[in-house]
Amino acid sequence: MMDFLEEPIPGVGTYDDFNTIDWVREKSRDRDRHREITNKSKESTWALIHSVSDAFSGWLLMLLIGLLSGSLAGLIDISAHWMTDLKEGICTEGFWFNHEHCCWNSDHVTFEDRDKCPEWNSWSQLIISTDEGAFAYIVNYFMYVLWALLFAFLAVSLVKVFAPYACGSGIPEIKTILSGFIIRGYLGKWTLIIKTITLVLAVSSGLSLGKEGPLVHVACCCGNILCHCFNKYRKNEAKRREVLSAAAAAGVSVAFGAPIGGVLFSLEEVSYYFPLKTLWRSFFAALVAAFTLRSINPFGNSRLVLFYVEFHTPWHLFELVPFIVLGIFGGLWGALFIRTNIAWCRKRKTTQLGRYPVVEVLVVTAITAILAFPNEYTRMSTSELISELFNDCGLLDSSKLCDYENRFNTSKGGELPDRPAGVGVYSAMWQLALTLILKIVITIFTFGMKIPSGLFIPSMAVGAIAGRLLGVGMEQLAYYHHDWAIFNSWCSQGADCITPGLYAMVGAAACLGGVTRMTVSLVVIMFELTGGLEYIVPLMAAAMTSKWVADALGREGIYDAHIRLNGYPFLEAKEEFAHKTLAMDVMKPRRNDPLLTVLTQDSMTVEDVETVISETTYSGFPVVVSRESQRLVGFVLRRDLIISIENARKKQDGVVSTSIIYFTEHSPPMPPYTPPTLKLRNILDLSPFTVTDLTPMEIVVDIFRKLGLRQCLVTHNGRLLGIITKKDVLKHIAQMANQDPDSILFN
Amino acid sequence: MMDFLEEPIPGVGTYDDFNTIDWVREKSRDRDRHREITNKSKESTWALIHSVSDAFSGWLLMLLIGLLSGSLAGLIDISAHWMTDLKEGICTEGFWFNHEHCCWNSDHVTFEDRDKCPEWNSWSQLIISTDEGAFAYIVNYFMYVLWALLFAFLAVSLVKVFAPYACGSGIPEIKTILSGFIIRGYLGKWTLIIKTITLVLAVSSGLSLGKEGPLVHVACCCGNILCHCFNKYRKNEAKRREVLSAAAAAGVSVAFGAPIGGVLFSLEEVSYYFPLKTLWRSFFAALVAAFTLRSINPFGNSRLVLFYVEFHTPWHLFELVPFIVLGIFGGLWGALFIRTNIAWCRKRKTTQLGRYPVVEVLVVTAITAILAFPNEYTRMSTSELISELFNDCGLLDSSKLCDYENRFNTSKGGELPDRPAGVGVYSAMWQLALTLILKIVITIFTFGMKIPSGLFIPSMAVGAIAGRLLGVGMEQLAYYHHDWAIFNSWCSQGADCITPGLYAMVGAAACLGGVTRMTVSLVVIMFELTGGLEYIVPLMAAAMTSKWVADALGREGIYDAHIRLNGYPFLEAKEEFAHKTLAMDVMKPRRNDPLLTVLTQDSMTVEDVETVISETTYSGFPVVVSRESQRLVGFVLRRDLIISIENARKKQDGVVSTSIIYFTEHSPPMPPYTPPTLKLRNILDLSPFTVTDLTPMEIVVDIFRKLGLRQCLVTHNGRLLGIITKKDVLKHIAQMANQDPDSILFN
Repeated sequence: MMDFLEEPIPGVGTYDDFNTIDWVREKSRDRDRHREITNKSKESTWALIHSVSDAFSGWLLMLLIGLLSGSLAGLIDISAHWMTDLKEGICTEGFWFNHEHCCWNSDHVTFEDRDKCPEWNSWSQLIISTDEGAFAYIVNYFMYVLWALLFAFLAVSLVKVFAPYACGSGIPEIKTILSGFIIRGYLGKWTLIIKTITLVLAVSSGLSLGKEGPLVHVACCCGNILCHCFNKYRKNEAKRREVLSAAAAAGVSVAFGAPIGGVLFSLEEVSYYFPLKTLWRSFFAALVAAFTLRSINPFGNSRLVLFYVEFHTPWHLFELVPFIVLGIFGGLWGALFIRTNIAWCRKRKTTQLGRYPVVEVLVVTAITAILAFPNEYTRMSTSELISELFNDCGLLDSSKLCDYENRFNTSKGGELPDRPAGVGVYSAMWQLALTLILKIVITIFTFGMKIPSGLFIPSMAVGAIAGRLLGVGMEQLAYYHHDWAIFNSWCSQGADCITPGLYAMVGAAACLGGVTRMTVSLVVIMFELTGGLEYIVPLMAAAMTSKWVADALGREGIYDAHIRLNGYPFLEAKEEFAHKTLAMDVMKPRRNDPLLTVLTQDSMTVEDVETVISETTYSGFPVVVSRESQRLVGFVLRRDLIISIENARKKQDGVVSTSIIYFTEHSPPMPPYTPPTLKLRNILDLSPFTVTDLTPMEIVVDIFRKLGLRQCLVTHNGRLLGIITKKDVLKHIAQMANQDPDSILFN
Repeated sequence: MMDFLEEPIPGVGTYDDFNTIDWVREKSRDRDRHREITNKSKESTWALIHSVSDAFSGWLLMLLIGLLSGSLAGLIDISAHWMTDLKEGICTEGFWFNHEHCCWNSDHVTFEDRDKCPEWNSWSQLIISTDEGAFAYIVNYFMYVLWALLFAFLAVSLVKVFAPYACGSGIPEIKTILSGFIIRGYLGKWTLIIKTITLVLAVSSGLSLGKEGPLVHVACCCGNILCHCFNKYRKNEAKRREVLSAAAAAGVSVAFGAPIGGVLFSLEEVSYYFPLKTLWRSFFAALVAAFTLRSINPFGNSRLVLFYVEFHTPWHLFELVPFIVLGIFGGLWGALFIRTNIAWCRKRKTTQLGRYPVVEVLVVTAITAILAFPNEYTRMSTSELISELFNDCGLLDSSKLCDYENRFNTSKGGELPDRPAGVGVYSAMWQLALTLILKIVITIFTFGMKIPSGLFIPSMAVGAIAGRLLGVGMEQLAYYHHDWAIFNSWCSQGADCITPGLYAMVGAAACLGGVTRMTVSLVVIMFELTGGLEYIVPLMAAAMTSKWVADALGREGIYDAHIRLNGYPFLEAKEEFAHKTLAMDVMKPRRNDPLLTVLTQDSMTVEDVETVISETTYSGFPVVVSRESQRLVGFVLRRDLIISIENARKKQDGVVSTSIIYFTEHSPPMPPYTPPTLKLRNILDLSPFTVTDLTPMEIVVDIFRKLGLRQCLVTHNGRLLGIITKKDVLKHIAQMANQDPDSILFN
């Protein structure tokens, strides 16, 4: 037990980049730390204060994460809003006002034309002093594309030069990191700064991407950086991952204004090790973040949620049929998107294409901007579009989507019955159909480019458009054919039966579910948007159908597919391992390989060990009693071994190449006049995990997952036979799924 | 591998009552089953259909559980409502109407006196034809107590005679069962029937108990019984526990009308093994149950939730101070309740008291009823009381709690400013204070009696009363002293600053949190009651304070305390094991004990083995290569060994006492003319879990928890040294916490 009190050698117990952590060891270390503080706390008042502050540091950290990520989200929202409007014009009252804000302060504005005021100048007004005619249109078109290209260029250049990790949504990597992988700098301060800036640029450039996924990355960066202020979390990789799980919850919480949904997202989608204590803390962080964002009030409406929806009409049981149709659509879209997007990303990785990220981004931006400008639904920002599609037409809505005939002719006070669609609705339908096609195609090429890009918003947009189209169709069907058997029991003429906005919402949930395969968290996020339990059933029906359909066409969600594409060593916790192989089929050495490289406990010299180290690349070595008995004593890590021997050679008197290294408690009896021995028991893991060679792989996989192992030794009747590493497990899983086992790249 | 195809011997692989299941084996068996079905499904259409129906049977089961538990909850609500009113009177229109329903149909009723109608007759009206005067009061008093005693007597007798397991809330036992313990009949049909009936009786008797906890037990019974219809779940203890987790969620969902809160309750409080698939299914079951209950509509108001609350005034940051005070009160109450209740229950267990359950119930009922009748707040059912306390006073409220001065004198249209309290409010305050004392005292003696009794409602009532008292106090303070520094920045005269109903809700959450130590699920349940994210911060502040205060005074929640009281083998997943002991300190045999009882792989006769079995009581034996080498081969369970030997002696030709039993793959070489050998490799677990003797116990505890082990073998340098069972682990934990290690009663 005295070993623990020895001064640790610097570097022992840390990890190399692109390596997997050992959860068991990290958690052990944290418990040791905690025990020490608790024991000391009885000694002095100062130590007691230290112990209390240590206990509360977790909560303080959550508070800081909430505040910081809420503020950053607010900042991103406000800047993105302003820069999106900048593509169309500028406010002469003050260039820092966005369109809405500019006209808000204006006196020259009527309620019907809320967004037309003299203070807001489109680019054509500024340049050629008119907003009318073909030339003005061309000027505005040109400026729109120009700004888009400028933003996109800035975004991709910043990412490329300063922080290559800032691209993408970041969720696949965060999942991998949370499962115990080390990617240095992925959650660092440069990534945070550059991702925040480029996210605003990317969103403003009008590309088909969202800021919700990247916000999770931003929040996780905040979490990681703030960890450095607390010893407890800075030094322990397992504890830090608890904090990151909570930060991910805070990220989703600010993205949608849905704290409970955020926590469930973290639990369901990204986290790996999620003890109940973390659940409660995540909830706290998510709530603080949401309220920080609300007090910044970026949407100018005191609403917590991104899309606030209020529906007035209940849904009818028969409507489950169209909802399930939307679910099927969502599942098909999800499966299609994942396949084509992965195929395109693979092409990017393997061909020349990947070498020109700037050109790629500029080309996609140009195509998007050129196609988007003529259609008002593609020109507006995607979140505005979704917001409009979710909206239930009220009396005062001036949107084209609400241009029904007789819209001011309400039979009963305030209530809006189903009405025949007017010209505006028909033209909106056409434009929406075109928007749908554009979004579907362009999103496939956008996601995965070297800029920050989220998937939530584009997926939701696709679903919301499809849903709205179906909803309006249903509404018109019910209006013109309310005598049909399917309608006449519940939808009399002049009643308000069908809410197209609800269809849009259900469609959005279905498509998001198809792409990400979220379930509970998806429904809860949507529930938090509406706040009514009423609409959970439609959402759930669509989400379930969508997941089933998508799962039937391909088991992986988009994040898992990207993890596999990049070869990260991620051990999926959701999938059951269903094959009947045994540990002996997976362990190294294989049947005809040379024997397992082992160290003996008290008979090898420093030189012998150094030879073993230089001749192999294994990250650790089992230590046995003797080569003949092969009885296992413990396990020692390569990195620790190298550092310790180096350290001993430098500092310890007389340790030379012929010194005997021993791992036993007492030095072996030595003949006189031999060089001093080197005791390395303190770096030996005396409780390595072992399984027998006949253990089914399903149990081995389970052990790796649940305990977070790095390696496991295999014995037969008490003798050491081989070793299974996490990489071996992953390769075996890939092999069993008929995939290339060499796609697993890291340790 | 051929062993799997052998016909299994009946009984092998099942468990005795009061034993712990082996999660690893159960999950393995389910995977084998699943693999078999998947493989067969390629052979024929029928097998394919079977495979698909097998995959969907889980969802069907969830649907059925939701429907059944929703219906039962509706039935219980309606009956309890009717029988509670029966204590006060009867409807002459039809005895099956409850008070509200009776007057609902009446024409002779004014809005102010909604609950006074000629059709509803109090017992004094029926018996002595008047409702006025002291004699009538005494008649009503007498009848009230009489009915209460009758209901209580029926409840306790039914429980005692038919289903002793139907008593209590059931949550401690369900937690234990879900962690892998077998209690036969605890979730059986008799328990279900009797618990449903007696729950109604117990609630109606006016005792200080709720139906929410027992509803979880009822739902779990439904789940367990419905499991019998599906092979997949009937035969597998691990799969069945997944279903029970979902059923628990459905139970809370119907209890409060909070499906998301129910799922989180199941996750946080009761479940042990909760894979993500279960999360999604639980959510489905919870939702179906909630909507079934709503379509039964027992509260007659189309509301899903038990206490529907709508507040209009936002809260102010300063109000966090009283909310935290409520949190401290809740924590103190929780700690006090747990201590005194456990002390009383221990007394019941250890003294003569426990032998007279009927008398005990009748005495407590009599005291409760006699003290309750004179005070209107104790006379009404507890859930009605809570509902009234949560209520924000509107213009039309006729309740005494809303009897403010100038209540009809509203300054601004519809808004209700803070007002001076009227006579009614003052008298209500006194009555509530008395109610608070009664509830606090009587609940301690009620919980744990031999009738179904839940804790949620009494705890919430205590908190709600305290909260309302504080809330009204604050309101009056703000009214009379609105110029104080703490008020003047946000509370001008005549404004509506403080909502006493919100204080009641926060108090209820704090007290419930203090008793059960729920966190996220508590806040989410409360959130679902109000539907507004606004009030989450006060709730969270109170719940956090309450948990911290209560934890400082005693680590365990009420359910864990009852688990320990009853000595159930429950391995708490939330607590970290913080001691620095090693596996060798816990394993059997201890240092001076005789050696570990082992079997050898191919040298013991049937008689030798039978001697070992009869001389020991261990539930399993390690199998080693030879006694000298002590190298481990596998582990065999006592139950399987007995059944197999018996079976072999009966059926297999020539197996006699001198037959050699072998566990190796091939029969050992035998001299000629020896009796036939008996091969038992098929009952040998070839992949027993092992740890080294130097493994820290914190890691061993972690392994037991996460993998759900029953036992684990201990080795030293490859030699078998000892064994650690779950009971050893639990005893060790108890010992380390300075508790009696022999309090762990079962295996």
